[in-house]
Amino acid sequence: MRTAADIRRANAFDVIRSLHAAGVAGRRQLAEWTGLSVQTVATICGELLETGLVSEVSRAKAATGRPTAQLALNPEHGRLLGIDLAETYVHVETRTSALELISSTELEIDLHRHSPRQIVARVREAIEAETATDDLRPFLGVGVSAPGQVDRAGGVSVFAPNWNWRNIPLLEMLRGAVNAPLYLDNPLKALVLAELWAHPELGSQDFVVVNLGTGVGIGVALEGRLLRGCTNSAGEWGHTVVVAGGRQCRCGSRGCIETYVGAQGILQTLREVSPESTLLRGDDQAATIRALRDACAAGDEVAVETLERTAYYLGIGLAGIVNMLNPEVVILSSWVARDLGEHLLERALPHMAAHALTTPLLAASFRVDTSADDSVSMGAAAFALEGYLHSLSNATTVDSVPTLRTGTSL
Amino acid sequence: MRTAADIRRANAFDVIRSLHAAGVAGRRQLAEWTGLSVQTVATICGELLETGLVSEVSRAKAATGRPTAQLALNPEHGRLLGIDLAETYVHVETRTSALELISSTELEIDLHRHSPRQIVARVREAIEAETATDDLRPFLGVGVSAPGQVDRAGGVSVFAPNWNWRNIPLLEMLRGAVNAPLYLDNPLKALVLAELWAHPELGSQDFVVVNLGTGVGIGVALEGRLLRGCTNSAGEWGHTVVVAGGRQCRCGSRGCIETYVGAQGILQTLREVSPESTLLRGDDQAATIRALRDACAAGDEVAVETLERTAYYLGIGLAGIVNMLNPEVVILSSWVARDLGEHLLERALPHMAAHALTTPLLAASFRVDTSADDSVSMGAAAFALEGYLHSLSNATTVDSVPTLRTGTSL
Repeated sequence: MRTAADIRRANAFDVIRSLHAAGVAGRRQLAEWTGLSVQTVATICGELLETGLVSEVSRAKAATGRPTAQLALNPEHGRLLGIDLAETYVHVETRTSALELISSTELEIDLHRHSPRQIVARVREAIEAETATDDLRPFLGVGVSAPGQVDRAGGVSVFAPNWNWRNIPLLEMLRGAVNAPLYLDNPLKALVLAELWAHPELGSQDFVVVNLGTGVGIGVALEGRLLRGCTNSAGEWGHTVVVAGGRQCRCGSRGCIETYVGAQGILQTLREVSPESTLLRGDDQAATIRALRDACAAGDEVAVETLERTAYYLGIGLAGIVNMLNPEVVILSSWVARDLGEHLLERALPHMAAHALTTPLLAASFRVDTSADDSVSMGAAAFALEGYLHSLSNATTVDSVPTLRTGTSL
Repeated sequence: MRTAADIRRANAFDVIRSLHAAGVAGRRQLAEWTGLSVQTVATICGELLETGLVSEVSRAKAATGRPTAQLALNPEHGRLLGIDLAETYVHVETRTSALELISSTELEIDLHRHSPRQIVARVREAIEAETATDDLRPFLGVGVSAPGQVDRAGGVSVFAPNWNWRNIPLLEMLRGAVNAPLYLDNPLKALVLAELWAHPELGSQDFVVVNLGTGVGIGVALEGRLLRGCTNSAGEWGHTVVVAGGRQCRCGSRGCIETYVGAQGILQTLREVSPESTLLRGDDQAATIRALRDACAAGDEVAVETLERTAYYLGIGLAGIVNMLNPEVVILSSWVARDLGEHLLERALPHMAAHALTTPLLAASFRVDTSADDSVSMGAAAFALEGYLHSLSNATTVDSVPTLRTGTSL
């Protein structure tokens, strides 16, 4: 059951997410958007103003009575780092405390240099590039998204199948890179948080973010709350079996959907369609996926057949999500989706129709997240911001009144 | 986002579920079990006492100070009907307003007499058997669980694949059978509600009830809240594809897990293992499943092989649930589980281990619901009780104070 503190925390997040999306808003508007009472919103805003994270920017003249204060997130309060550590690159973004992008650095990760020490060195390199500025705003927090299964509380990468990492103390190894608290989670959770911050209206809906990259998984939000499961590993859709006894998966199992719609799975299908295809760029997943995208747009038969086969499995997999979770919105995200998502979604639709029940399928809308932004980095920065708010509220806890109690747990 | 009214409703349900499970309890104990403040519990109890659904049964002598009032659900307040309409039978239970079983009636449903008119006549027959008593307590509500997809608000059976029903106005056709409001939902939702009422401690956990009957599906509870999805069709796990291009399913798709682990799927496997098996009882699913159970216990090779093959697909399917939802508890329920659940679960474990990720698999515990009770009927009676509470609170709504606001929506 949710405790009163959980509810207060969730309410505070709803308020600041709405404020972030609106840019500038008054307390009444925030109450309207969040469905909370004006009194609750006023209490939360009072606490946020005290922290300095929110500031009063102007007073709007009301039709009658005194002018009402307009609030906004205060970008001068500090900075946040959002780190998207993926199998093939590390992307680091610096954002203000209002989550506005200041700068970013992206470094490729060599497929053959994936020891924990090598990867951490690469991440530190990207962090240094971002922190070597004369910006004086303090860092409030650093959010890190790492692939695979992570232990949030311990800051440990429990299992990263692509690198064969097990129980690597990632945050411990990054300590000192920035003088700020570090928060770890995985890209599925980051993508959901990015959507909730960018589109707070999704908070009233059940939605699913499908991460199509080297790894495959889903992030699930139910009524604006991130589904974590009992050990924070909910969303491992990539290892759902769609072909019993099918392709060997790096997780040890067979026939997982990741082996058909993940980047490596798509490359394997391409090799099956045409073993000597000129679209193949050796080990370089990203270059091959881009080549497929361009060839498909040009009507290349091999590329189209590869996408048709991939879309068949994607359609079956998405139908399973629709049947099981009955979401209102499904968003294809991450780098494979950015390159191939539109091609795949269009071809997956008939297979979805053949494999999903009518009622939930008609209720769901599908889209590809084509924003040039790295949504995972944005979500990681949001981890850091929510973690910062949580630490503030823990420092001054009053339990019996509805004071600001924030946290990373939703 | 959840509104304040939703939260008050959920709090009230938590209190009465705890009271139901405890039998007798004081306000402080209820506060402790639910995690709510004593003040909130006192307010909720005050409203429940006023309705007559809860009564004060005694005063326990406290170590110091005045004796504290002990509360209980009041079985004299009225009666409830819980109806489990399944593909092969209809089971109707009469329960007190404290959800104690008074009596039950079960009638078989002929596989070949499944027109809406024929089925409704059978349900009315069972209801008449239950209502022809000289018990004077009024009926507070009737909960109906019907297979397949239902439209709760409209009281319509949207799609019942086994009978090929589409958009049948079931509650309209049952009107007048009892002088009480009727509430419709499906067995997946009923099973989750039955667990939440029987084991309110599950309310702090993420759990999944797997319905193994003629149809197959899951009911999902996240932190004590029933997952409905945006059109109340979440949990259609039975139509998750485990063998792309596999067995033809009655839903129109191919390779759905229901075609391997549902009653008809198990019969098909048995026919594949031994086309002339003496275990086959013609069209009678229930009799064949019972024959398989007994033969398996006796070590019969055909039965064991049939269960081994079924367990392979069940293991793959359960692994998918564990990966995606990361639940703490998984409960196999319904009539096929009652007969074959233990045999299947034991044999499914190695296949689960081969197809699930380690962390969520180790976090999950599995059990078979072997209670002789019909859990679906119990859940249906709970629909009726929650619907009754909801109607009471709607009659006297005060929005700005934390008064009792109950409802069937969790």
